Amino acid sequence: MRSLEWVEEGIEMVDQTKLPHQVLTLRVDDIATLIDAIKRLAVRGAPALGVAGAYGVALAVKHHHPDHDPDGFEAAVTALGTARPTAVNLARMVDRVAEIARHHPDQALEAAHAVRDAELAASLAMGERGADLVLELVDRRPVRVMTICNTGGLAAVERGTALAVIQTLHERGELAEAIPTETRPLLQGGRLTTWELERMGAPFRLIVDSAAPFLLARGVADVVLIGADRVAANGDTANKVGSFSLSLGAANAEVPFIVVAPESTIDEDTPDGDAIVIEDRGPAEVTSVLGTPIAPDGTAAINPAFDVTPASLITALVTDERVLRLGRS
Amino acid sequence: MRSLEWVEEGIEMVDQTKLPHQVLTLRVDDIATLIDAIKRLAVRGAPALGVAGAYGVALAVKHHHPDHDPDGFEAAVTALGTARPTAVNLARMVDRVAEIARHHPDQALEAAHAVRDAELAASLAMGERGADLVLELVDRRPVRVMTICNTGGLAAVERGTALAVIQTLHERGELAEAIPTETRPLLQGGRLTTWELERMGAPFRLIVDSAAPFLLARGVADVVLIGADRVAANGDTANKVGSFSLSLGAANAEVPFIVVAPESTIDEDTPDGDAIVIEDRGPAEVTSVLGTPIAPDGTAAINPAFDVTPASLITALVTDERVLRLGRS
Repeated sequence: MRSLEWVEEGIEMVDQTKLPHQVLTLRVDDIATLIDAIKRLAVRGAPALGVAGAYGVALAVKHHHPDHDPDGFEAAVTALGTARPTAVNLARMVDRVAEIARHHPDQALEAAHAVRDAELAASLAMGERGADLVLELVDRRPVRVMTICNTGGLAAVERGTALAVIQTLHERGELAEAIPTETRPLLQGGRLTTWELERMGAPFRLIVDSAAPFLLARGVADVVLIGADRVAANGDTANKVGSFSLSLGAANAEVPFIVVAPESTIDEDTPDGDAIVIEDRGPAEVTSVLGTPIAPDGTAAINPAFDVTPASLITALVTDERVLRLGRS
Repeated sequence: MRSLEWVEEGIEMVDQTKLPHQVLTLRVDDIATLIDAIKRLAVRGAPALGVAGAYGVALAVKHHHPDHDPDGFEAAVTALGTARPTAVNLARMVDRVAEIARHHPDQALEAAHAVRDAELAASLAMGERGADLVLELVDRRPVRVMTICNTGGLAAVERGTALAVIQTLHERGELAEAIPTETRPLLQGGRLTTWELERMGAPFRLIVDSAAPFLLARGVADVVLIGADRVAANGDTANKVGSFSLSLGAANAEVPFIVVAPESTIDEDTPDGDAIVIEDRGPAEVTSVLGTPIAPDGTAAINPAFDVTPASLITALVTDERVLRLGRS
């Protein structure tokens, strides 16, 4: 199953805001609907956003052909590329396909398919390479894997990054259990990763985020796998808030801590983690859960969107092209 | 304001299940209502449960006078003392007052008041001694304090343990900010500690649990203060799940990590943390938030009720009688 596909001249995607209790397919035939879907997180995850953006340019060609309505086309492309400002992959893939469409409008859809195929190939490669590394580093069979957030097919097109490794281990018969953290504030682990694990038939148990370091200390998992929003040139890794806590827990328990992310996530222009600005997403996500308020009205919060794990606490980075050993032995 | 008081021959308590959005006073005139309040966590926290149990014996004397209805009295006392099996303090204080009531029924209420007064005095002492220690260990003025769960007046009668130290710092004009973690699964930090901090007029910002170690690494707090469910003979400390994660974060950030708990929490019969059995509270608390399901139906979970922080990661234990320096320097 794919998180989004090009079907009959439009995009069909799983509406991730309804999961896990409703599996709703959202039909997208125009740019406005796509931008709305991106903004309200019906589609999310860097690779999935890239593919959605690429297909969005194909939709823009259909409604505002660059030869007949160039202003309309450029306006649509700009609106699409900036629908989520922090999603570098969205802007990058929109630009890539738009550049082709300006000169060869009839090749836009083909270029978008190529973006999708590259993501599929990258997920497969990361899954295989990551599973090989886990089986090399971990003696116990089958393996028990802890992970955070959602890094699966929903965040990509199919399979994903860290969760692709878990899926590959499961397909090889080497997965004893996955242990996803629920991943407050937005609960992507509790809502989405559980749903994907269930669909792939993998055994799993959910935990609250703060239990992870203690359960690692008590020997509940053999390895921790995470995705990445951005990897600095020195290997410091920005990812969902809670990743740093997991890295401390993994180091304390002496289990490998592995980052799984495509090469495109590595940002050579960012020397290290200190150069990464941490966006604060405001108090609402913290002071409520799925829309239900949990704190007194007007409660202030600190809400870092992600955190930074230093390379010294990471065993290895697995990409679609290679394995990089980092600071932790 | 007190979490519970003896008023007109009965107990009046804040119904903690309604906080922070409703401040409801629950009137308790009989044992059945009290046991129900204990079971559904309308009253919680070891010291508060001890005082509630003590007053409960006074209620038992009223309805089942030991001289005229000894069987009824013993049945009421047994039901009360076992209303929450893990709450050692509840059973202990019920026993203490019941023993007096059997011989001198007219002294039961006085004995219960004495239990309350001892808790009040202990909270005051911990607050003062803890504040002194924080100001000794931390150079920055005013101080920024991170804490977990609810350890305030709601969990005691007034002031509490770790939150009593924060209150004392605030009263001395030395508190810059409190940073409570929300404390999944039951959100006592988000629901109760925020409410108490607001009532005492202390500045605070709420965070999700998994952000704590990273925010400590970024220098957001100067000290971490926690309470304790049980302290082993060697100083290993069982407390709300997430405490261990905070202790790793505090060690990484090189800020003091201080446990605040009454002497009665120290269990000399438990040699160390390995001897503490971790109760699993089942999946429901993890797979839902305040009653709203977040995971697919039937999702399994690991749900440790508390965790154990080794003495090697604790700077000091502050009790109502003394300060014990532990493993971390």
